Parts: sequence; C-alpha cells; structure tokens
Amino acid sequence: MTDTQTLTARGGDWPDSAFLKQLVAVVRAEDGHGAWDNKTDPELLSEFILTAEERRDMPIMGDPDPDTVWRLEKFYAAIGLLIERQSGCMATPMSKFSHEGFGRMVLIAGKLVVLSKHLRDIHRFGFASWAKLAEAGEKLTADAVATIETYPDAARA
Amino acid sequence: MTDTQTLTARGGDWPDSAFLKQLVAVVRAEDGHGAWDNKTDPELLSEFILTAEERRDMPIMGDPDPDTVWRLEKFYAAIGLLIERQSGCMATPMSKFSHEGFGRMVLIAGKLVVLSKHLRDIHRFGFASWAKLAEAGEKLTADAVATIETYPDAARA
Repeated sequence: MTDTQTLTARGGDWPDSAFLKQLVAVVRAEDGHGAWDNKTDPELLSEFILTAEERRDMPIMGDPDPDTVWRLEKFYAAIGLLIERQSGCMATPMSKFSHEGFGRMVLIAGKLVVLSKHLRDIHRFGFASWAKLAEAGEKLTADAVATIETYPDAARA
Repeated sequence: MTDTQTLTARGGDWPDSAFLKQLVAVVRAEDGHGAWDNKTDPELLSEFILTAEERRDMPIMGDPDPDTVWRLEKFYAAIGLLIERQSGCMATPMSKFSHEGFGRMVLIAGKLVVLSKHLRDIHRFGFASWAKLAEAGEKLTADAVATIETYPDAARA
C-alpha cells in the first residue's frame, strides 16, 4: 500500500479552487455511511491523479474499470453543479460509452448543449496534478457558462 | 408463423408518409447483403406494429429485447434524418438506457437539443397501426423543426 502522504503528494500543491471544492462535495455526497469521514480532501480524490508514469503502465485493453467511469461521471457532475452555481441554469449530464472506452458526454441546460465532449481512452482518465484537475474543471465550466450567455433563451427553455 | 398478409394487415392501411418512407430507408440501409430485398415495406417494418392485444401479452420483466432497442434507435434515426431534410440541420441521436427499460433519447443539432424524450416501458415499444407510427414520427419531427426555427443560432452553432 502507498501511504497517505505519498498518495496526496503525488498531485503536488492543492490549489484553492471552486471546482475542487465542488468535486469533493460531489464525491462526499456518495458516502452515505460516513466511511470516508476521516479522509482528507486530497485522500478522497487521490485516484483522480494519474502521473505520467502511471499512465504509461496502464493497460487500455478491454473495458474501462467501473471505478474510472464512476470518477469520470463525478468529474462532469461537479462541472454541472458549478455551472448551475455560476449561471443559475441546471445542467444535467448525459453520457454514452462503448465498451472499448470511447464515448460522448454532454451537459444539457434547458434545450442547450452547454458542453459536448467526445471521449476516448477513458481507461486513462486522470490528471497529472491537482492544479491540472482544477484547471480542466474550471475551463470546461467557464466555456459552458459562456455558451449559456451566448444562447440564454435556449438554456432557459 | 404468421403469414405475410396477416402481418402487414395488422397495421391497417399504409399511409403515404414522408416519415414511413424515411424509416423504410433507414432499415433497408442496414441490409448490406440484400437479405430483405424481397420484403415489401410493410413486411420490413412489421415489428414496429404492436397491437393492443400483443402489448397486453408482453412481459416487461428483465432487459428489453435488443431487437426492440434496435427498432427504437431506427425510429429516432429516421426522425433525425427527416429533421435534416426539412431544416437543413443535421440532428444526431444520443441515447442512454438502463437495463430496466427506462432511458432518455435526445436529438442534438449544433448546440440545440431539438428533441428530448424520457422513455419508459421500452419493452413495449411499438405502434397500434401504420397510421399511428407515421403520426408519431411526423409529430416529433415537426416539433423538432419548430424548435430549430425558435433557436436557429444554437441549432447552427
């Protein structure tokens, strides 16, 4: 077992990020029995980090690990909630994955597709650092909020 | 085996319908080897018909039949193509089904959700007559085209 400090240090410095806070909240919300109460935030999200070395060692044969798909879904759920906080428009995720690790994820607000990503290599979903994870979530959120501002009527339809 | 005449007569009169023509084209496009070349259009689509009696006798336990899901997907694919013919906007389907026969189907043109249906009872997907099948497809197409006309910029984004 990797010890806790190594696990969290893997991601570098933990930035002050609205997205990371939202992602922590989304993941903690799944913990109905309080099994993760003693985990720090970086411990809780440790598996969102995938270093370059870990990525290289990862097989991409077969179906993506269900835990990886779960993390991917939490990542987009957090973006959806952050979009709502910033725009007032509820954005619900809809995803479709093939068995081979390809897929599409959309976030829909009203009649507007506020985010659309074709995903590949789902097997290797993960970020090299906390900063990269925060940046990715915040960039996608900002783009989605800008899309809502461009098409406000469709987003509120 | 039910004979051909009974099968097609099950759906009543075959109306002159742009949607039925499109659906026939979509289904025939799957027939790469010409195995269905000798089938008439009503024969080809006979399983889209589900009479009230057949519906009653149908179990809804377990997963929906893959053939039923296939027909559901062809139904929405035909709507997507008819939307494109009528509006010039390509509308691509995206669906997500649970194992229990619940799901959601959306058609997306640009950044616009032109059709969104929450589906239940997928096990029993089917129409009481050709007229009902044509009407359902044409109504959904017309609604989607109207949505595109309401939000033309998002649809062309």
